[in-house]
Amino acid sequence: MTTDNRTPVTILGLGSMGTALAEAFIEAGHPTTVWNRSEGKARPLVEKGAVRAETIADALTASPLIISVLSTYEVTLQVLEPAGAALAGRTLVTLNSGVPAGAREMAAWAAARGALFLDGAIKNVPAAVGKADTLLYYGGDKAVFDRHEATLRVMGGHTVHLGAEPDLAALYETAVGATLLPALVGFFQGAALVTARGLTASTMVPYAVKWLEMIGSVMPALAEEIDSGDYSRPFSSIGVFYDGLAGERGLDQEANVDTSWQEPMNELLRRAVAEGRREQSISALIELLRK
Amino acid sequence: MTTDNRTPVTILGLGSMGTALAEAFIEAGHPTTVWNRSEGKARPLVEKGAVRAETIADALTASPLIISVLSTYEVTLQVLEPAGAALAGRTLVTLNSGVPAGAREMAAWAAARGALFLDGAIKNVPAAVGKADTLLYYGGDKAVFDRHEATLRVMGGHTVHLGAEPDLAALYETAVGATLLPALVGFFQGAALVTARGLTASTMVPYAVKWLEMIGSVMPALAEEIDSGDYSRPFSSIGVFYDGLAGERGLDQEANVDTSWQEPMNELLRRAVAEGRREQSISALIELLRK
Ligand SMILES: NC(=O)c1ccc[n+]([C@@H]2O[C@H](COP(=O)([O-])OP(=O)(O)OC[C@H]3O[C@@H](n4cnc5c(N)ncnc54)[C@H](OP(=O)(O)O)[C@@H]3O)[C@@H](O)[C@H]2O)c1
Ligand SMILES: NC(=O)c1ccc[n+]([C@@H]2O[C@H](COP(=O)([O-])OP(=O)(O)OC[C@H]3O[C@@H](n4cnc5c(N)ncnc54)[C@H](OP(=O)(O)O)[C@@H]3O)[C@@H](O)[C@H]2O)c1
Repeated sequence: MTTDNRTPVTILGLGSMGTALAEAFIEAGHPTTVWNRSEGKARPLVEKGAVRAETIADALTASPLIISVLSTYEVTLQVLEPAGAALAGRTLVTLNSGVPAGAREMAAWAAARGALFLDGAIKNVPAAVGKADTLLYYGGDKAVFDRHEATLRVMGGHTVHLGAEPDLAALYETAVGATLLPALVGFFQGAALVTARGLTASTMVPYAVKWLEMIGSVMPALAEEIDSGDYSRPFSSIGVFYDGLAGERGLDQEANVDTSWQEPMNELLRRAVAEGRREQSISALIELLRK
Repeated sequence: MTTDNRTPVTILGLGSMGTALAEAFIEAGHPTTVWNRSEGKARPLVEKGAVRAETIADALTASPLIISVLSTYEVTLQVLEPAGAALAGRTLVTLNSGVPAGAREMAAWAAARGALFLDGAIKNVPAAVGKADTLLYYGGDKAVFDRHEATLRVMGGHTVHLGAEPDLAALYETAVGATLLPALVGFFQGAALVTARGLTASTMVPYAVKWLEMIGSVMPALAEEIDSGDYSRPFSSIGVFYDGLAGERGLDQEANVDTSWQEPMNELLRRAVAEGRREQSISALIELLRK
C-alpha cells in the first residue's frame, strides 16, 4: 500500500484498543509509530510495519498526529508530562474513557504546551475498529477536526464532531456509557439463572439481543418525556416495575444467584412510589437521580 | 371482519398491556370478552366490540381460551380463586411478569382445577402488540400450544414454544429481563448528565441506541465464555472496567447526579480484581453472582 501522502500517526498505549487502532493505521498505509510502557506489546505491530518509539519524546516527535489510548486521563498526563514540550504545534487526540472534568483538564494541559487538541470516544469494541459503522465522536476545535477527519475515519467510518467544547465527547461517552456495566451485570445474572437449570447462556442470547432492541426502541419516547418533564403518559409506569419487585424476592433461592446488586435500583422504585409517582413513567426516576 | 371460526378469547386485566391485547383480538375478529377489577377500563373496548364480563366466573365461562395479564401471579391467583372450578377443560394462559416459582405455582393450581395451562411472556411494549416481529414465548404442554398457536400469534408474530416445563417462559423472562431496569437507570443517569449541561436527552438517543446494539453484538461471545468457563481471552477485561471507576468519582459533582445506585456493581469489580481476575473477561463477574 502506498504511504506517500498519508499523515504519519503515533499511537500511545498498546492495550487491546491501542493495538487495534495501530493495526488499522498500518493497514491503511499510514506511517505508524507506536509506544507502550511495557515494550512486548509493540513487537507484533513492528512485524506488521510499525516503528516502535523507545521514549515518549521520540513517540511525540515522530508524527504530527498523536493518538493516545491509555487507560485513563491520569495515566495519560503522567505519561506525557516529561515530554510535554514536544507537543507544541502537533495535534493530540485522547481516546481513553473518562469523565468530562478529565477531558477539560487534558485540554488545558495540551493548550498550555501549544498543542492542538481533540478528545474523542470510541463507541465500540477493538474488533470493530476500522469498520464502516463503527462510531467515534469528538469534541474540540472544528478546524482541527476538519484537518484530520480523513485520518480519524481510519478508526471507524461513523466519525462525528459534537462541538467545540473539548469535554463533549467525554460528556456523551459518560452519559451513553452508563448503560454498559448495568446491562452486562443484568445479562450475567440472567445467564446465572439459565445455567443453573442446565441450559446454556447461549440459548438466551437471541432473546436478550431482541430485548435490548426493545429497550433502544423506547429510548426516543423516554428522552422526550425527560425533555418535556411530562411523565403522565407512560410507556411503562413506575408501578409496573415496583409491582415486579415482590416477585424478585424469591430469585436468590431459585438459582442461588446474588441479586443484591439491584437493591439500590429497587430502592429508587420504592422512593418514587412513596413520592406519589406510581402512575408516572419509569423515566421519572431521573428526578430521583438529580440531586 | 368475519368472526365465524375464530376462537373466542377472554382477557383478564385491562392495564396498558391487557388493553393492547384485547384490541389486537378485537381487530383480528375474535369474539373477545374482557374483565377488569375497576370497570372503567372496559368501556373503550366494549365500544370497539368486546363484551364486558361483570364477574370473573362470567369471564371464564365466556371462552375456551383465557388470557390473563394482571400485574403478578399473586394477583392472578387471588382473582381466579373464587371461580377456579369454571376453568375445568379450558385453557388458561398467563402473560404477567414473574419468577419461575410463581409460574410453577400457577401451573399446579391450574392443573388441580382441570385446566390446560401455558405460561408465556411478552417481550415488548403494549404498542408493539400484534406486530410481525413482536416476541412472545411460552412454556407448557406442546399440544396445548399447538392447538392455540394461530390465536396466540394475534398478539405477536414471533411466537415461540420454549419447552414443556411450565416455568420456562418465566425463567427466560426473568433471565432476559434482568437488563431492563439497570439499562434504563443507566440511561436516565446519562440523561441527567447531558441535560445538566443544557443539552436535551434526545441528543444522546442515537448514540445510546447504537451503544445498546454494541452491547447486543458482544453477547454471543460473552455467553460462549460463560458456557465454556474460559474467561482468558476477553473482549473487554475486568481491569478496563475497574480502571474506569476512579474517574467516575468526580461524576456526582460534575452534574449533581446521584450515581450511588452503581455502588454494588463497582464493588463486584473491586472484589473481582481482589480475587485476581483483573485480566479475565468482564463475563467472569458471573462467578461472583453465583452464590
Ligand atoms: N477495550 C474496549 O472495548 C474499549 C472500548 C472503548 C474505549 N476503551 C477505552 O480505551 C482505553 C484503553 O482501553 P484498552 O482496552 O486498550 O485497555 P488495556 O488493554 O487495559 O490497556 C491499557 C493501556 O494503558 C497503559 N497503561 C496503564 N497504566 C499505565 C501507566 N501507569 N503508565 C503507562 N501506561 C499505562 C497500558 O500499558 P501496559 O501495556 O504497559 O500495561 C496499556 O497500554 C480505556 O480508557 C478504555 O476505557 C476501551
Ligand atoms: N406494560 C408493559 O410494557 C409490559 C410488557 C411486558 C409484560 N408486562 C407485564 O404484563 C402485566 C400487566 O402489565 P400492565 O403494563 O398492563 O400493568 P398495569 O397497566 O399496571 O395493569 C395492571 C393490571 O392488574 C390489575 N390488578 C392489579 N392488582 C390487582 C388486584 N389486587 N386485583 C385485581 N386486579 C389487579 C389492574 O387492575 P385495575 O385496572 O383494577 O387496577 C390492571 O388490570 C405485568 O405483569 C407486566 O409486568 C407489561
